[in-house]
Amino acid sequence: MSLNSNDSCSDRRRFLGLGAILGGALTSCKPTQTVEQAAPSALGKPLSAYGERSPFEKTARLVGAGKNPEIGSTKTPLQDSYGILTPASLHFERHHSGVPRIDPAAHRLLLHGMVERPLILTMDDIRRLPSVSRIHFIECAGNSGSEWGPKTAPDAQRAHGLASCSEWTGVPLSILLAEAGVRPGASWIIAEGADACHMQRSIPLKKANDDVLVAFGQNGEAIRPEQGYPLRLVIPGFEGNTNVKWLRRIKVVDQPYMTKDETSKYTDLMPDGTARQFTFEMEAKSLVTFPSGGQKLTGAGFYEITGLAWSGRGRIDRVEVSTDGGKTWQNARIDEPRLRMAFTRFRMPWKWDGQEAALQSRCTDETGYVQPSREALVEVRGLNSQFHNNCITIWKVSPDGGVHNV
Amino acid sequence: MSLNSNDSCSDRRRFLGLGAILGGALTSCKPTQTVEQAAPSALGKPLSAYGERSPFEKTARLVGAGKNPEIGSTKTPLQDSYGILTPASLHFERHHSGVPRIDPAAHRLLLHGMVERPLILTMDDIRRLPSVSRIHFIECAGNSGSEWGPKTAPDAQRAHGLASCSEWTGVPLSILLAEAGVRPGASWIIAEGADACHMQRSIPLKKANDDVLVAFGQNGEAIRPEQGYPLRLVIPGFEGNTNVKWLRRIKVVDQPYMTKDETSKYTDLMPDGTARQFTFEMEAKSLVTFPSGGQKLTGAGFYEITGLAWSGRGRIDRVEVSTDGGKTWQNARIDEPRLRMAFTRFRMPWKWDGQEAALQSRCTDETGYVQPSREALVEVRGLNSQFHNNCITIWKVSPDGGVHNV
Repeated sequence: MSLNSNDSCSDRRRFLGLGAILGGALTSCKPTQTVEQAAPSALGKPLSAYGERSPFEKTARLVGAGKNPEIGSTKTPLQDSYGILTPASLHFERHHSGVPRIDPAAHRLLLHGMVERPLILTMDDIRRLPSVSRIHFIECAGNSGSEWGPKTAPDAQRAHGLASCSEWTGVPLSILLAEAGVRPGASWIIAEGADACHMQRSIPLKKANDDVLVAFGQNGEAIRPEQGYPLRLVIPGFEGNTNVKWLRRIKVVDQPYMTKDETSKYTDLMPDGTARQFTFEMEAKSLVTFPSGGQKLTGAGFYEITGLAWSGRGRIDRVEVSTDGGKTWQNARIDEPRLRMAFTRFRMPWKWDGQEAALQSRCTDETGYVQPSREALVEVRGLNSQFHNNCITIWKVSPDGGVHNV
Repeated sequence: MSLNSNDSCSDRRRFLGLGAILGGALTSCKPTQTVEQAAPSALGKPLSAYGERSPFEKTARLVGAGKNPEIGSTKTPLQDSYGILTPASLHFERHHSGVPRIDPAAHRLLLHGMVERPLILTMDDIRRLPSVSRIHFIECAGNSGSEWGPKTAPDAQRAHGLASCSEWTGVPLSILLAEAGVRPGASWIIAEGADACHMQRSIPLKKANDDVLVAFGQNGEAIRPEQGYPLRLVIPGFEGNTNVKWLRRIKVVDQPYMTKDETSKYTDLMPDGTARQFTFEMEAKSLVTFPSGGQKLTGAGFYEITGLAWSGRGRIDRVEVSTDGGKTWQNARIDEPRLRMAFTRFRMPWKWDGQEAALQSRCTDETGYVQPSREALVEVRGLNSQFHNNCITIWKVSPDGGVHNV
């Protein structure tokens, strides 16, 4: 439904029953003194070279460190998100040995192994090459690990905050591989970071030659230190750990190297005792971000339910929302543009009657894959897995307006 | 041309002649000690709640204040831009009495005048309503004022930096107008800000009911103070000044109010002594951001020319680039998605022979409008105008690699 003309706007108003519904939510007109109070009469803050957010804004990443504050993760406050972009300052983190301080003038990318012409590239070399900008999510394979149960996380940030979405700018890795000249028989690459642990992952050459970026830009400026400054791999749709940060080396090889992060971690132990390995693609997932766990509705009446959906396999085709615990579903409205391997923002009008409600979303991607319920996921994967949980989250709204994960 | 398969990648390589061209630009393989130098062996910085950019990144807004640092503008460093988004910290500013400090809990929006049901809305009221997120540029009508000549600005930031692009999230104004019930005979709205000068602009009701947003989100977080926190009008394609910040009041009326900013400013004095008024739409414009004035090429060889194009009338259909002073033109590649009233990123491969070159871009929007040369613009508008300069910029590359505005 278009909002772009008087007619459709009136239609929408009738559809939403805004007059009736918002009547309760909106303040009727009072003398304008109420408005004057918020308007200062003195000059405000001066112009500035690099802006900051309002001091009234407090939303932040949630720091989950282990023994050392350099090793662990922070989670994005998805419950406070707008649109499809994550501000760089709030993009989730996952570090294995902290954020290295890298002078871009001294940084080099080595491309070697099974290639005709090994290359060492400076940042200046890389910036001369053909680039592209694309909006993509990155999600840690361990995201939503709490949702296997039995005790689920209380809010959207703790449950699902290891996922964020940015506009990335970089050189297609395929161009660098073509320049180096891949030798026959090569089938994988090994990507290595310049952090102290030299984090490494094996990635199929087929994907490396497809849509992978050697990225130096994020949301219109240089990539942030926590995201790999000055260079990271962005592997659209693949689990976050493969998007190697502080990228210093790519080796073209003929087999995966069974590095620490693809053996001791990021494998999925199945019910029969075998483990799935190299489960790169993040499957379609969605959640309602408002109303969500920990938030409180101020009373019955009209609300817009909103949330995020994404898939590692392409575009989100459909998001359905249920407010009655899954008995009935309605198609949500999806903001344009809907992009491949990017967050998608969905919205649905809702008239809360003040009674208990159970809110959930279910997405379908362009391959036809439908996001599973927890029961359906456990049926296939069992309860040994820590990674790749993409099940539906159900938020229960209590009559007092409180919202809880169930 | 797709970069997404081995075949097209090889085609692209042949097309660009990368092997031949980059051979000169790229360092051949040296012992890996070079690489090791940049890799620290100690733990890096710890996890953090709200990230910052690298201390090595220095690009900033350029502050152009008058007598008072609260009154004036700052310009976005477009020469350092990536993709289509402007980081909120680098979005251009134009203030008439500084940036007010507004507590969102105390802020109100008054909607009154020729309506059936005047409304006073709190921020909580507004956030319950149906919203939408869209990527739009905002450009000051005074942008590129230096380019009327005879002395043009030396770089992209000084010449064109009063333009930026963000993802905006907000409630369609049409919904609020429908809720209030516009009375017959109304034809304009007056929008007023909560800054000390209570900046006001008159906007046609037709546009107000079309695609205007009452925006509270910018690039995934709350709108920044310099951009109107907690609420601004976003009027896609209209001159920046009409996108009223710190929005506190909308009055529905039957005529424009001839406010200070639409009479003493933001009108275009024509050669015959009459003035154009209410020239809201920003016409199609583009510029090459790299290589651009003040930058220096390090030597002959391959470069990717890149830049930005936008139109207040819709989508950018085509961008042509010339490297020989306008004798020949080639279609540039345009990154997807191409969005209406949003920055569009274009790119073109270029083999610089080390001789003098003149780089320029020319865009065409979906209405068929073609960006004019300076001569063509002056022919129509004369030299009395200060505003709405959208002419082509020509960057001259000298044999020493220096780049200058001509």
